[in-house]
Amino acid sequence: MLNFSEVNWEQLLTVAGVVALKLILILIGFLIVRSIGTRIIDRSFNRMMERDSVSKGRALTLKSLMVNVFSYVLIFIVIVMLLETVGVQATALLAGAGVVGLAIGFGAQGLVSDIVTGFFLLLEKQIDVDDYVTTGSFSGIVESVGLRTTQIRGFDGTLHYVPNREITSLSNHSRGNMRALVDIGISYDDDIDRAVSILQEVCDRIAQEDENIVDGPNVLGVQGLGASDVVLRVVGKTKNGEQWGVERKLRKAFKEAFDAHGIEIPFPHQVYVEKPTGESPQPAKDNG
Amino acid sequence: MLNFSEVNWEQLLTVAGVVALKLILILIGFLIVRSIGTRIIDRSFNRMMERDSVSKGRALTLKSLMVNVFSYVLIFIVIVMLLETVGVQATALLAGAGVVGLAIGFGAQGLVSDIVTGFFLLLEKQIDVDDYVTTGSFSGIVESVGLRTTQIRGFDGTLHYVPNREITSLSNHSRGNMRALVDIGISYDDDIDRAVSILQEVCDRIAQEDENIVDGPNVLGVQGLGASDVVLRVVGKTKNGEQWGVERKLRKAFKEAFDAHGIEIPFPHQVYVEKPTGESPQPAKDNG
Amino acid sequence: MLNFSEVNWEQLLTVAGVVALKLILILIGFLIVRSIGTRIIDRSFNRMMERDSVSKGRALTLKSLMVNVFSYVLIFIVIVMLLETVGVQATALLAGAGVVGLAIGFGAQGLVSDIVTGFFLLLEKQIDVDDYVTTGSFSGIVESVGLRTTQIRGFDGTLHYVPNREITSLSNHSRGNMRALVDIGISYDDDIDRAVSILQEVCDRIAQEDENIVDGPNVLGVQGLGASDVVLRVVGKTKNGEQWGVERKLRKAFKEAFDAHGIEIPFPHQVYVEKPTGESPQPAKDNG
Amino acid sequence: MLNFSEVNWEQLLTVAGVVALKLILILIGFLIVRSIGTRIIDRSFNRMMERDSVSKGRALTLKSLMVNVFSYVLIFIVIVMLLETVGVQATALLAGAGVVGLAIGFGAQGLVSDIVTGFFLLLEKQIDVDDYVTTGSFSGIVESVGLRTTQIRGFDGTLHYVPNREITSLSNHSRGNMRALVDIGISYDDDIDRAVSILQEVCDRIAQEDENIVDGPNVLGVQGLGASDVVLRVVGKTKNGEQWGVERKLRKAFKEAFDAHGIEIPFPHQVYVEKPTGESPQPAKDNG
Amino acid sequence: MLNFSEVNWEQLLTVAGVVALKLILILIGFLIVRSIGTRIIDRSFNRMMERDSVSKGRALTLKSLMVNVFSYVLIFIVIVMLLETVGVQATALLAGAGVVGLAIGFGAQGLVSDIVTGFFLLLEKQIDVDDYVTTGSFSGIVESVGLRTTQIRGFDGTLHYVPNREITSLSNHSRGNMRALVDIGISYDDDIDRAVSILQEVCDRIAQEDENIVDGPNVLGVQGLGASDVVLRVVGKTKNGEQWGVERKLRKAFKEAFDAHGIEIPFPHQVYVEKPTGESPQPAKDNG
Amino acid sequence: MLNFSEVNWEQLLTVAGVVALKLILILIGFLIVRSIGTRIIDRSFNRMMERDSVSKGRALTLKSLMVNVFSYVLIFIVIVMLLETVGVQATALLAGAGVVGLAIGFGAQGLVSDIVTGFFLLLEKQIDVDDYVTTGSFSGIVESVGLRTTQIRGFDGTLHYVPNREITSLSNHSRGNMRALVDIGISYDDDIDRAVSILQEVCDRIAQEDENIVDGPNVLGVQGLGASDVVLRVVGKTKNGEQWGVERKLRKAFKEAFDAHGIEIPFPHQVYVEKPTGESPQPAKDNG
Amino acid sequence: MLNFSEVNWEQLLTVAGVVALKLILILIGFLIVRSIGTRIIDRSFNRMMERDSVSKGRALTLKSLMVNVFSYVLIFIVIVMLLETVGVQATALLAGAGVVGLAIGFGAQGLVSDIVTGFFLLLEKQIDVDDYVTTGSFSGIVESVGLRTTQIRGFDGTLHYVPNREITSLSNHSRGNMRALVDIGISYDDDIDRAVSILQEVCDRIAQEDENIVDGPNVLGVQGLGASDVVLRVVGKTKNGEQWGVERKLRKAFKEAFDAHGIEIPFPHQVYVEKPTGESPQPAKDNG
Repeated sequence: MLNFSEVNWEQLLTVAGVVALKLILILIGFLIVRSIGTRIIDRSFNRMMERDSVSKGRALTLKSLMVNVFSYVLIFIVIVMLLETVGVQATALLAGAGVVGLAIGFGAQGLVSDIVTGFFLLLEKQIDVDDYVTTGSFSGIVESVGLRTTQIRGFDGTLHYVPNREITSLSNHSRGNMRALVDIGISYDDDIDRAVSILQEVCDRIAQEDENIVDGPNVLGVQGLGASDVVLRVVGKTKNGEQWGVERKLRKAFKEAFDAHGIEIPFPHQVYVEKPTGESPQPAKDNG
Repeated sequence: MLNFSEVNWEQLLTVAGVVALKLILILIGFLIVRSIGTRIIDRSFNRMMERDSVSKGRALTLKSLMVNVFSYVLIFIVIVMLLETVGVQATALLAGAGVVGLAIGFGAQGLVSDIVTGFFLLLEKQIDVDDYVTTGSFSGIVESVGLRTTQIRGFDGTLHYVPNREITSLSNHSRGNMRALVDIGISYDDDIDRAVSILQEVCDRIAQEDENIVDGPNVLGVQGLGASDVVLRVVGKTKNGEQWGVERKLRKAFKEAFDAHGIEIPFPHQVYVEKPTGESPQPAKDNG
Repeated sequence: MLNFSEVNWEQLLTVAGVVALKLILILIGFLIVRSIGTRIIDRSFNRMMERDSVSKGRALTLKSLMVNVFSYVLIFIVIVMLLETVGVQATALLAGAGVVGLAIGFGAQGLVSDIVTGFFLLLEKQIDVDDYVTTGSFSGIVESVGLRTTQIRGFDGTLHYVPNREITSLSNHSRGNMRALVDIGISYDDDIDRAVSILQEVCDRIAQEDENIVDGPNVLGVQGLGASDVVLRVVGKTKNGEQWGVERKLRKAFKEAFDAHGIEIPFPHQVYVEKPTGESPQPAKDNG
Repeated sequence: MLNFSEVNWEQLLTVAGVVALKLILILIGFLIVRSIGTRIIDRSFNRMMERDSVSKGRALTLKSLMVNVFSYVLIFIVIVMLLETVGVQATALLAGAGVVGLAIGFGAQGLVSDIVTGFFLLLEKQIDVDDYVTTGSFSGIVESVGLRTTQIRGFDGTLHYVPNREITSLSNHSRGNMRALVDIGISYDDDIDRAVSILQEVCDRIAQEDENIVDGPNVLGVQGLGASDVVLRVVGKTKNGEQWGVERKLRKAFKEAFDAHGIEIPFPHQVYVEKPTGESPQPAKDNG
Repeated sequence: MLNFSEVNWEQLLTVAGVVALKLILILIGFLIVRSIGTRIIDRSFNRMMERDSVSKGRALTLKSLMVNVFSYVLIFIVIVMLLETVGVQATALLAGAGVVGLAIGFGAQGLVSDIVTGFFLLLEKQIDVDDYVTTGSFSGIVESVGLRTTQIRGFDGTLHYVPNREITSLSNHSRGNMRALVDIGISYDDDIDRAVSILQEVCDRIAQEDENIVDGPNVLGVQGLGASDVVLRVVGKTKNGEQWGVERKLRKAFKEAFDAHGIEIPFPHQVYVEKPTGESPQPAKDNG
Repeated sequence: MLNFSEVNWEQLLTVAGVVALKLILILIGFLIVRSIGTRIIDRSFNRMMERDSVSKGRALTLKSLMVNVFSYVLIFIVIVMLLETVGVQATALLAGAGVVGLAIGFGAQGLVSDIVTGFFLLLEKQIDVDDYVTTGSFSGIVESVGLRTTQIRGFDGTLHYVPNREITSLSNHSRGNMRALVDIGISYDDDIDRAVSILQEVCDRIAQEDENIVDGPNVLGVQGLGASDVVLRVVGKTKNGEQWGVERKLRKAFKEAFDAHGIEIPFPHQVYVEKPTGESPQPAKDNG
Repeated sequence: MLNFSEVNWEQLLTVAGVVALKLILILIGFLIVRSIGTRIIDRSFNRMMERDSVSKGRALTLKSLMVNVFSYVLIFIVIVMLLETVGVQATALLAGAGVVGLAIGFGAQGLVSDIVTGFFLLLEKQIDVDDYVTTGSFSGIVESVGLRTTQIRGFDGTLHYVPNREITSLSNHSRGNMRALVDIGISYDDDIDRAVSILQEVCDRIAQEDENIVDGPNVLGVQGLGASDVVLRVVGKTKNGEQWGVERKLRKAFKEAFDAHGIEIPFPHQVYVEKPTGESPQPAKDNG
């Protein structure tokens, strides 16, 4: 039969005491490390906010993420240490769980990737709410930047939810003056120099009228010899977001100036070669 | 011969007793941890429901997923601990099974990826039943959002089963007012200002009549100088889902207004240059 | 020389006895666990069949797969335990075989992926034999759904063998009523209101005649202002699979109604601008 | 100096004897397991041949593959066991070789993937020599199905060597009757009903004459309202491989029947709108 | 101070002697295994050369590769064993080097993949020097097949260096007779039967004249009803590499025969519908 | 009860002393290694700056990166050594954390990849601020090159943030003289030699006038026989960034020279074959 | 208190002595192995330079790479052995660092891949400075081949930096004679034989005049029956890099010869079918 009397109770209690001591020490160490770590994170973010002028809201989001990650990692380590101390082979458990874990890890890597990218999107100034951006196949106004997804409101009203990992390259259209570009074709019969001077006059007039124009639209010259027209290019710089309006204004003014000076914006041309009927065309075919 | 009498039965029983004690302790620990864990999950979800106003049905689905995952992980750990206690090297088994496991893991990672994405689809408010969404190459009305697949009813009646992992970027067309946009071309001979004022009149009239219009359709100006027409753009804001109806109404009204005022929506133009026959064209070719 | 007499035969036999005992215990444990596991799988599937109304054939296929997988895993574990018991370091063997195994694992992951997807295709009701589905670049009638491949009969008679892993997104065209959509163009000279009322009359007549039509075809309005025609759109709902027949019927009826009322379905138009010959076109070119 | 006399030779010999004994036992075990395994594989394939009617040639190829794989794995295990027995740490060697092995494994996974797919191509009846198949961008007649590559003879005479792993989805055009489909356009001026009845007459006549036609070609109706013609669709079922011949026959017969009944297969149409010269076209442009 | 006198020199020497003995045994074992292995490889390749008629040059390349790989693996194993014998923990080193090794492994897997594919390209008869092949986007005459790269001379003179791993699917145009295919259009006004009989006459005449033609070109029938012509298809079989010459010859002969018999190869047709000017075209537009 | 009196305090203190000694030694070692390492990095970069003329700003960025990485790795090693010294099994912790770590590792590999590529972008002279570059789908002027992202200002004013890992291939348009290329078509009726000599004259004149032209534009000859024109190609070398201006100047000059010499830049041509009406065209169709 | 007097100093010193001895032995071994290894690499490259005629510059680059890699690996091994000798568990450190290392490894694998490919680019003769090559989407003259990147100067002056790993397939246009190919269309009315003989005469004349032509341009025959022309193909062989010049010369000569002999290079043709107005076309449409 099982004889409990022979168990060395005294020794057991000693061991238990040592274990208890260890547990207490681990927990104390945990609290100390945690408080130090949190303070370091705090200070780094304060300094960053001052130096890089990151907005306060963003800095708080990032700081809370960092504190959370730090805490979870620390708690994880402490649990493993506690289990090891009471004699459970946590390492074995963890290693054993590795197969399932890897499958999950692969499945969840998208999530991690989202957060890593999101972290940098928040930290750097690539993107701000109300910016007009293009990323991948989505274009529109940024409505919110989160750790996992960024919301972009397309111009047709659609709300695009883009996971941050999909935002590899980002084109921000709200970072400085924009170009207004108008290509306009004139007839091969018209005088290029005259057309250019008319266009330039219009450009100069509009540049004075419209304060959205930053750098005068200028006629660059003959951009191409098209199938039916000689293409002239006009380029200018406008305030951000005003490029379309300026382009529309330029197009209308150009058309009206050309009308006024009798310069043609030509339709597609085609030369008709009539098969001379008298010379018995395609004799082989029709007469055989 | 095998001599059982020499086996130290007493010692064996002591060991067995200790093992039994351990098993009981493990099971008790299991029950305690499980009940605590379940309660924590419960409370988190209740708080989340209140704070983020997640619908009750969704919160229940997510909670049950979390409880299931938590329970399976716990049961897995307990089984490994039990096996180790009775002297089976579960770790070895698991490590050995790793090769097969990895192959399965790779094969099944799609499944895990589905569930991770599905979790966030349910948690966040990206997608609701009856929303009109576009994801990847599928467009339509959401019929159901599940942990593994989302069902989208295309406008032609087809039911698309989209695994959640395929829903990387999501465009939701049911999140606010939509844009109605009509491009209409006028002849190069017509007066732009007159055409614009006619269109704007129509816009103003329809904006009053139709309460689906949120923000008056306005004529933006000359959007392009086409091959055969001057393109004018009209843009407005409508209630969600009414953009197509408003666009159709605008198109009809514009066409009728143009008819009434004798402004032409031009057909494609082409200029015919006839080869002057008197000047013996292509002499080399025809006469040789 | 080798002296067998000094081998401790007694001790050897004791060890052998213990080993034999262990083997027997392992085998008994194996049989018990297997029978319990099989029963659990059995019951789960029975419950599932009742609750989710999965067809009996499918449930049997899935159950047999589950029982097989469970048995193979169990047998694998038992063999490792047996080997370990008789002193062969199976773990070492397995770890050593890992390199080859991984290569095979990568090569065979397609197979595993097929079966995991196949499992869910059978379990859920995404796809049934005789459904008309589209997946990837394949369209047709499902002929069979297997664990590894799904067979789809294309409309041209070709039999497509699609591995299940390729079926990521699935569009099922046999899940409810379908849309019949006809776009028809009228001349810019014709009256839109008159054309719409003629089309609507035809729609109403056909909706009464044809019981395949579920929701009356209606004229939505001016869908587009084309290059040569004003495009009107008619949309209706039909019974599943009847959409093409209804569309054909509508097209014929529309054409005949337009013929009867003298409304033109216009050919492509083009405006011919003749270069006024009297004004010496392209003087530079022709006269030089 | 090195003193060999102090080596315990007796003990050494005993150890050597035990090692020798172990080696012999391992080899005997190897032979037994091998013979049992081979027999099991044998029987499985015999049963499979009977049940699934796999051709004998294929079954032999597959059986020999299985026996080879089984033998190599067994030999590998035996070598590791032998090395371990004589005191070489084979596991260490193997683990050490893992880095090189993994690189090779990745490089060779294509090979494994080929063989796994090839195994199933041979086992299942997806593909047979002389079938007309399409897989990926290759189409043609199957010349041979191997474990690593499948040879497809394109219709232009090219021989395509396709590694089996590239055969993910497979379209087999030799699995049952094929569809013959002819779209034919009639003029907008012609009577649809008359054209349909003429086509149907031709279909019925040819269906009687040609025994390759399985299911009568029928006129489905108005498939589309084209830019210049009303498109009628005719569909029938033919014996496998005869679809092209039947389609050619139908096209010729339709054309001749239409000629005989004066129904036009129309050329592309275009409406010419001449710019009325009297009304001073483009006054702004020409007169300015 | 360090006292060398107390070191047990005698014992040290004994150990050294045993180590030396082991080293010698390992080296002897290495030589034996190497010579056996080389011989086995030798014989396999000799047998393969006889059985599969692999050219001698190729067999030598492959044999030398196999011998090299075998030798390197053996040397690697021996070095590890030597290091272990003298007490260096080579396994630890290797495991430690694993991180760097894996990175290299991933980077170099392309190289391994090249050689594995190259091995099979040399072993099998998919490709021979002077074959005309297409693989991926490269077409041309094979100039050399190596273990790492295959050189293909494009028809424009460019030399393409294709790494073997890129040769997944391979189309070999030098494996048997090729098809000559000519599509030729006739006017809708011409008699199909007459045109077919004329073409067939030409085919028969050329088939007699040209010995490059293996299987008579035959007129298949009406391949299509084009926008402006009835397309007839002619197909024949020619000796390998002569297909283009035969096609050119057929095209010339067909054209001349059609000329001789007055059958037209039609230009694109278009029907001109003139807007009846008397009926005030587009009244709404012009008059308003 | 727990009896502390029996704990061997003396021994404990000795152990503690040894541990303390070890900790001090580790820290001293750390400081020494760190200072040596930093100095080596310093010197390497100084030498590199002299040898490869890397700008000072870049060298500092790179040096600080190297020092940081070196410090973090060292600190990591020291922490592990300290933990091991005080008896915490850091290795176990780390191994256990491996599953989570791998998931993060996969998620964060993009970040590492960015920095590795960024390191080489800064080190080598591929890209400089104000260069005009094209990478992937982005083109523009480089605004800044960072360790993680490169900012490219598109010509339309958009600021593209491109993660460095996306910069695989890079086309730098600011590395030397650029080509000016103008293709110009002349009529089939015009004399090629005369047109070439006119163009060459223009080229020579402009080459003298414009000092942006480095290598004379020359007429290469007949680049193509187009559908309606004979295409002549003119190619020259210009200073970097002046190619567009020179091309525009050349186009204008060519057009004016051709006008002056009566050489036509032809519109698209088409030959009209009128169906002879007298011969009853399409008799079968119209008369039937 | 800590009692240092009880520490066994004598034993400690002995141990220290043995350790010191080991360290010295390891360093000596390192120097010997390094010098032997360097010499072997030296000799291999000398032999390679003689046998394969690799240029001296390239051989030096490759040799220095090999020596560096060999040295770093050796130094790494020695450091690990030194650490192990002084009792630091370097293996543990390394294993622990594995997680971070793997992430870096994945991130840096592009770098390794570049160097592996670069090694072979330098070793083999695929690419030389001043070769005209195409790889991926880049074409141009090779300016330099490095271990990490290859620089290609595009014909428009752009400098492409292509990482070597991107150079999978490489097309080298500077490896032998090139083909000059000119397709030229003649009218359907012209005599093919006459046109061919005229072209052949031109070919023969130019082949004599131009010494860049290696293999006479010959007229192959009727390459196609186009929509408006009969296409004749002329093919010749020229010295490398002269193909474009020869093609331009041939085009000019062909055009002039055709002009001289009155053979037409036809413009696109179109047959105009006028709707017979007398027969009331489209009665339904116009009269209704």
